[in-house]
This record gives sequence, C-alpha cells and structure tokens, in this order.
Amino acid sequence: MTDTFLSDLRAALGSAHVITDPERLLAVTRESRGRWQGEALALLRPGSTEEVAACVKICAAHGVAITPQGGNTGLVGGGVPFGGVVLSLARLNRIREIDPLNSTLTVEAGCTLAEVQTAAAEAGRLFPLSLASEGSCTIGGNLSTNAGGTAVLRYGNTRELTLGIEAVLPDGQILNALSALRKDNTGYALKDLLIGAEGTLGIITACVVKLFPAPLSRATAFAGLKTPEAALATFDILRRRAGEHLVAFEYLERFGIEIVTTHLPGARDPLSEPHPAYALIELTSADPEADLDARLEEALGEAMEEGLVDDAVLASSESQRTALWSLRENMSEMQKHEGASIKHDISVPVSRVAEFITRGKALCEALLPGLRPCPFGHFGDGNLHFNLTRPKDMSDAAFLALYPQFNQRVHDLTAEMNGSISAEHGIGIAKRDELPRYKDPVALQLCATLKRALDPQNIMNPGKVLQL
Amino acid sequence: MTDTFLSDLRAALGSAHVITDPERLLAVTRESRGRWQGEALALLRPGSTEEVAACVKICAAHGVAITPQGGNTGLVGGGVPFGGVVLSLARLNRIREIDPLNSTLTVEAGCTLAEVQTAAAEAGRLFPLSLASEGSCTIGGNLSTNAGGTAVLRYGNTRELTLGIEAVLPDGQILNALSALRKDNTGYALKDLLIGAEGTLGIITACVVKLFPAPLSRATAFAGLKTPEAALATFDILRRRAGEHLVAFEYLERFGIEIVTTHLPGARDPLSEPHPAYALIELTSADPEADLDARLEEALGEAMEEGLVDDAVLASSESQRTALWSLRENMSEMQKHEGASIKHDISVPVSRVAEFITRGKALCEALLPGLRPCPFGHFGDGNLHFNLTRPKDMSDAAFLALYPQFNQRVHDLTAEMNGSISAEHGIGIAKRDELPRYKDPVALQLCATLKRALDPQNIMNPGKVLQL
Repeated sequence: MTDTFLSDLRAALGSAHVITDPERLLAVTRESRGRWQGEALALLRPGSTEEVAACVKICAAHGVAITPQGGNTGLVGGGVPFGGVVLSLARLNRIREIDPLNSTLTVEAGCTLAEVQTAAAEAGRLFPLSLASEGSCTIGGNLSTNAGGTAVLRYGNTRELTLGIEAVLPDGQILNALSALRKDNTGYALKDLLIGAEGTLGIITACVVKLFPAPLSRATAFAGLKTPEAALATFDILRRRAGEHLVAFEYLERFGIEIVTTHLPGARDPLSEPHPAYALIELTSADPEADLDARLEEALGEAMEEGLVDDAVLASSESQRTALWSLRENMSEMQKHEGASIKHDISVPVSRVAEFITRGKALCEALLPGLRPCPFGHFGDGNLHFNLTRPKDMSDAAFLALYPQFNQRVHDLTAEMNGSISAEHGIGIAKRDELPRYKDPVALQLCATLKRALDPQNIMNPGKVLQL
Repeated sequence: MTDTFLSDLRAALGSAHVITDPERLLAVTRESRGRWQGEALALLRPGSTEEVAACVKICAAHGVAITPQGGNTGLVGGGVPFGGVVLSLARLNRIREIDPLNSTLTVEAGCTLAEVQTAAAEAGRLFPLSLASEGSCTIGGNLSTNAGGTAVLRYGNTRELTLGIEAVLPDGQILNALSALRKDNTGYALKDLLIGAEGTLGIITACVVKLFPAPLSRATAFAGLKTPEAALATFDILRRRAGEHLVAFEYLERFGIEIVTTHLPGARDPLSEPHPAYALIELTSADPEADLDARLEEALGEAMEEGLVDDAVLASSESQRTALWSLRENMSEMQKHEGASIKHDISVPVSRVAEFITRGKALCEALLPGLRPCPFGHFGDGNLHFNLTRPKDMSDAAFLALYPQFNQRVHDLTAEMNGSISAEHGIGIAKRDELPRYKDPVALQLCATLKRALDPQNIMNPGKVLQL
C-alpha cells in the first residue's frame, strides 16, 4: 500500500515535496514544547490549492490520515500527527489580493500572521489579530484554531475577522467560499464551521480577512488595584467612558509583576508601591488628533475617586508603552524561571471574572499550601490564563504530578460559572478527553454528527477535538 | 395518522395551543405581502423549550413537517408552510436574564426585536440590531435569517451579535449552547451553523446577545453627490476620518427622494438643489461630550474640497435627524405609490458597489426603456436594495411579467462581481431555485450534506433554502 501511496503523492507534488527523511519528519511530528511526540509516514508540501486537493484525494483513496500543519505553534497538540501524513501549508504563502476600498486582504494559509499584519500595514490599514507567536504561526492555523489574542475586546476573534475561506474538504473537493462580502445570506455558515474545527473538517487553504483603519492615536495606562473586584469595576468604567476606543484591558497580579521584574533584564515596576492586582489598559483611535490620554486620565480619575484604582501611570512615550506591554507579554516566558507551572486557558462571563480569580485561587491554595497562583490575561474578554506556579520548595515533577487534580478543580469551577475550559487555545488532544465532562452532551453529539457527515473515513486530523 | 398525531400534540401542549381553526390557520399560512399562500394541518403554540421539544418529537415520530414561525415578517417565504404544522414561538417571550457587567441579554425566541431593544435600553445599553419590522419581527426570526439592518457597518450582522443559542434539533433533543462568553473554543461553531439556517436545521428557542454602551452623542448628515463613484470616495474618507464612530452610510438617488417627498406627508428635500445621488451618514459615540458634528463637518469638508460632495446638511436637532432618516426608512413603502417594483437584495465588495449601481442601472434600462431604477441601501456594507420601478405608462402586470428577466440580469451581474444574490433577506423559497446558478456547487453540496446529517427525515422547514 505505502509504495503506491507515496509514488502517487510524488507524481502529484514532485519528489522534492514528499519528504520521508526521518530527521525532517522529527521536526514536524514534535509539539513545539516537546509535550507530544507523534509520528508520520511523510511530510507533504503542496504548492497550491489544487495540489492540496490532489494530496487529500490520494490519502482518501488509501484511507491515510492527514494532519494539516501551519507554524506548529499550537498549544493543545492539534498539529501533532499520530500516523498518516503531515500536510504543511508552508508553500501556500502568497498574498493574493489587497482591496483597500473593501478593507479586505486575501491571503493563503501558509502566510505567517506577521506577514499578514505587514501587508495590511503597507496598505495603511490594520489587521488586528495579534499573538505572541505571530512571527511563526500561520494565518491558516489562526483560522483553524479561531485564535484570540490581545485585541479581541475591540475587534473580535479570528472567526469574526474572516469574511471568506477556500478549503479542501475531506473528499478532496475544493470549497470556494472566498467571499469578500460583509453580508451574504445564501445558505449555511460554512466558513464559520471550518474556522475553529482544528483541521478536522477540512484544510483551509486561503481566506479573506477584514482590515480596519490604522490606529493613529494610542493611550496606554498601568493601574494598581487592591482586588480583582476593583479591576472589574474599573473595566466597567472604562467600557462606559472609552467605549469604542477600548482595545485592551489586561489583568496581572503582584506575583506576576515580581516574576517579570526579577527575571527580565531591564524590566521594572512602573508604580512606586506594590499593589495586589494590576490592569494594563489601552485605547486607540483612527483619528490622529483624538486626545486619548485625556480620556484615559478622566476614566482613571473616576475609578480613583471611587476608591477602585490606587495608583496609575500613563505611558508618555513609545518606549514607555513598550515597557508596559513587555510586562504582560513576557509573563508566560518569565514564569519558567520560578519552576514548573500548571496552566489553564479558561473563560467565564465578564461579570464573574473577578469572582473566578478569588475563588479559583482559594481553591487551588487549599489543595496545595505554598502554591503560587499567577492568573493573568484578557480580563475584558472574561479570558484568563489561570496559571499556577509550584511552591518554592517543591520539585517540578512532584508538582506536575498534580496536573489532573488542579485541572479538574479549576475546570469544575469554570463549568459551575458557565465558562469554557478552552477560551482561545482549542481542544486538540490536550483537552479532548476532558471535554465530555464539561460540554453539553447534545452539543458534543452534534459535533460528532457533523464530523461523520463531512469526514466519514475519519482521515482529517483524526483523534483531535473529538473521540469518535 | 392525523388523529393520533393531533391528540398526542394536544396531550403535550393542551388543546388551546393546538389550533386547527381554518380562520386562524389562514393568518399563519399566508406571507405578509400575500406573495405566497401555504397550508398547514395545525398551528402549535408551545409555551416552553421543553414543549417545543415535545412537539418536534411527536412530529418526528409521525414524519410531519414543521415550519417554525416568529413574526412572519420575512421577505423570502421562509416562514410559509406547505403542509405539516406551523410552530409559533410567540409564547416563548420572556427576557430570561440581563447581565449588564457582561453586556449580555438572554432572551427567548418569541420576543419582538423592539422588546429586546427596550430591555437593553432599560439597562442603559444598546442592542444595535434595527430593522423596519422591529415592532413585529421576533429575535428568533432575526437569528434564523441572520438579519442585517442599518447598523451592520459598525456592529455586524445578527450572527456577530449573538454569543449563544438554545435550540431544539430535528430529533427533538435540546441543544444547550446558551453561552454568554466572548471566547469559547470547545468544538465546532454550532450556534453559527443554526443562525441563518432559516429553521431548516432546528428551532432556535432562546439566545444570548451582546449589548454595547448606549450611544450618547450622535451626528447625522445628508449629502448630495453627482455619482455613486463620488459616494464611494466619500465613504472612504468617512471611514478613515470617523473610524469607529461611523455607524451608517446609506445611499439614495434622486428618484428615490422624489418619490418620498411627493408621497410622504411632511417630507421635504433637505437640500436646496436636486442632486443625482445622496448619502445619509451617521456617527455615534458612547462619550456624551464627543464633538461628532465637528468631526462629520471636517470629513465632509474634505469631501467637498475634493469635489465629491456638492452640498450637505447636518441635523441640528432630533426632529431634523428623524426627518433625514425618514427619507431613507420610507423609501420602500413610498415606492408603492409609483406602481409595481421588481426588487433585489444584493451585495458586492464595497469597492465595487458604485460600479454595480452604474452598470446595473444601464443594464436594466437597456432591457426596458422608461424603467425607473430606485437603488438604495446599506452602501457601506456593499448591500443594495436594487429596486426597479415600472415605467410610468406600463401596467403593473406587464412589468411584473419581466421579473425573471430582470432577476437574472441583476443577479448575473452580481455574480460576475463576486457578490451575493441575498445579502440580508435569506433564500427561503423565493431564491431557492436560483441559488444553484450562483452558488459554488461544492458549497451547495456541503449545505445539503449538513442538512441530511442533521435532519435525515427532512421535516424541519422542508423545501426552504435547499432543494433536496
């Protein structure tokens, strides 16, 4: 079987693009942090949508599993193959079209997010999706995981940023839904279904994304607060007073600031006194003359008068702004210096995010005295990276052995608050077996029905998202 | 069969809510404009989600078709039954929950859109969906048709305004996807799939919708222009200069203004000279002190300097604002006084909307000299109600006999420009048989696969959207 299979693929793609060299396979079968090591027969590097379709048809004819892969930067093992082939979208990396008057960009799946951002910026527009891995993750992977990031509060998730897709379905047919339309009510929401399906329903090969006016004014503040509850009340004031300008309301805690200021060269606490909690707030406007600093000061003034914010600083230069954001952006990386962490990517209704922090920390500290909770993240979206650093005097291994227990407590609390156990990272294999505990059984069954209808052979990224 | 069927239904709902009286059936089997007259065995009025589920189970057991119905205000016959039962959501009319801090509202499908707007306003928030029929259309119908309206430019379509749904699936199971989360990547986009499915994949019984800060400042202008191309260039200036404040950019033409000023008591042309084309522009802000009039004046000033806008007036009072909007809102209604119209609800990329108007009018006028085109609509979304009024001296009947010919020319042009033949009204039965001519065959086949997988008996609003 394998021989005909590989020779068919070589005939379709050219031998150079059907890679079976074990060294090269190692790189694409390993999860980036080494958490999962998969295996694959071959790495396929098609150069066009038609070649992707040819690969899928050959795999379908031979019943061989396909794991689509973008930048291999996912955090839930969604791109790790367990047998079959890895299909890399890397060679589909053209910016196909930019239409400034329509505020859209048509790009192929293998473009990195940074390349998409740059293409938008060169046309004087903004593509607002922004993630830590933007230099290496691909837009195809962003769509497949419905990526979130730091500007969701203002611009929405990847699904909301996407107008149309082109995809290869599990039978090898090419779906042309590359609509660049703001409104199109002709049939079911096919693009929404494939976005966020983590490659289990087909392979997204290109997309049309929305662009926005480039922000020409910006104001950034860092505020010290006593409690997460004060952060929530401050968020409400900001949303009311800054309305359409509020793009980020990120949350951090004292322990997180200490980690970053201790381990990141040059990082320093922007406030003179320590505070239990912090908010990093940003406003932007397309109007170059918008006085956003004044607006932000007024909102923070109201929060101070109400006793919510104890101290705050506004960035008065680009380097100060970068320094403030660097505290947030390096949180996850700097945490490593303090030993192992147990991580969660949860969301709850925004109205309950403060309660979640308070109760979640108490719950976890009760399970393990000396635990150092490090919750941070997209507070304004109700999305927290609810990370837990091990006690100072505990071994990484002993701490990580508690992963399932912490997961269950944190996720049970999330579910009790009508939250999600995966706000932005997806399910992949990491959370697949936990999902049935938390997801509505009818919803899960409907997902399985859809999967079976679109991919009856179960060859598209099998074993991810759903256990069939 | 029918006897057991009806007695099962009466046992489930109570006799008062299983209506077979021909008079009452007439009202719910007729399309509101009388364009279609269907028929039904009974009208079911369940009072809860569980009762909806009971109805669907009984219908599924007997193989009886179900046409879900909200306010029966749809424009494509999607709510007209052709046999089977009509299931009215009218008694599911509770506002279940308002969560101001989460900026969400949980409502049942049978609430009118106006009731939802009012509940949001009473909490000091905005639910931005707004349509001509808002007093009688229901939120369930809005979701089922992915309704558009006048604020899509700023806030998105109904799908983007909805965070979660509760629905009864074609097998009678209740899907609980009533998420109130901004971020949730746990499985496929089930709510997006059911939204816009026109009741063919299940019955939406409740939803969680997003609220926004109430707009406390507003500026409205009416501008006279020479051409649709000038309108497009003006739109680009507005989008750049007003950015996040731009909520509406509606297009009208001289003939439309003449119709309304002639037939609507009290209506008058806001500009002293006639102009070939007009734009109705609105900015809003949550900031009560935002000087939007100044901003709008500056943007219009730039458009005048560039020779795009020939004259413009800003509303200086609420009554002036209402008068300007009334010209737009009464367009469709006042058109009736000039005789029969052939209507289209198309969208194209915004960059091509001016070209569409110019070419579309020329095309139609060539087909029928004396034709009076009346294009108007959501120019900023690329969505036009491309209406055609009959020549002055032609009979309605003779003109309407040309419906298919005009449809085909207008829709062929739409397709040539990568547009949609249904921007916001949906497919229903009105456009079902035209859809295969314009939709990607793989997309259409995928829709059919989904329909068969979810509704193998084809009992949910059969014959709508797809011809199976």
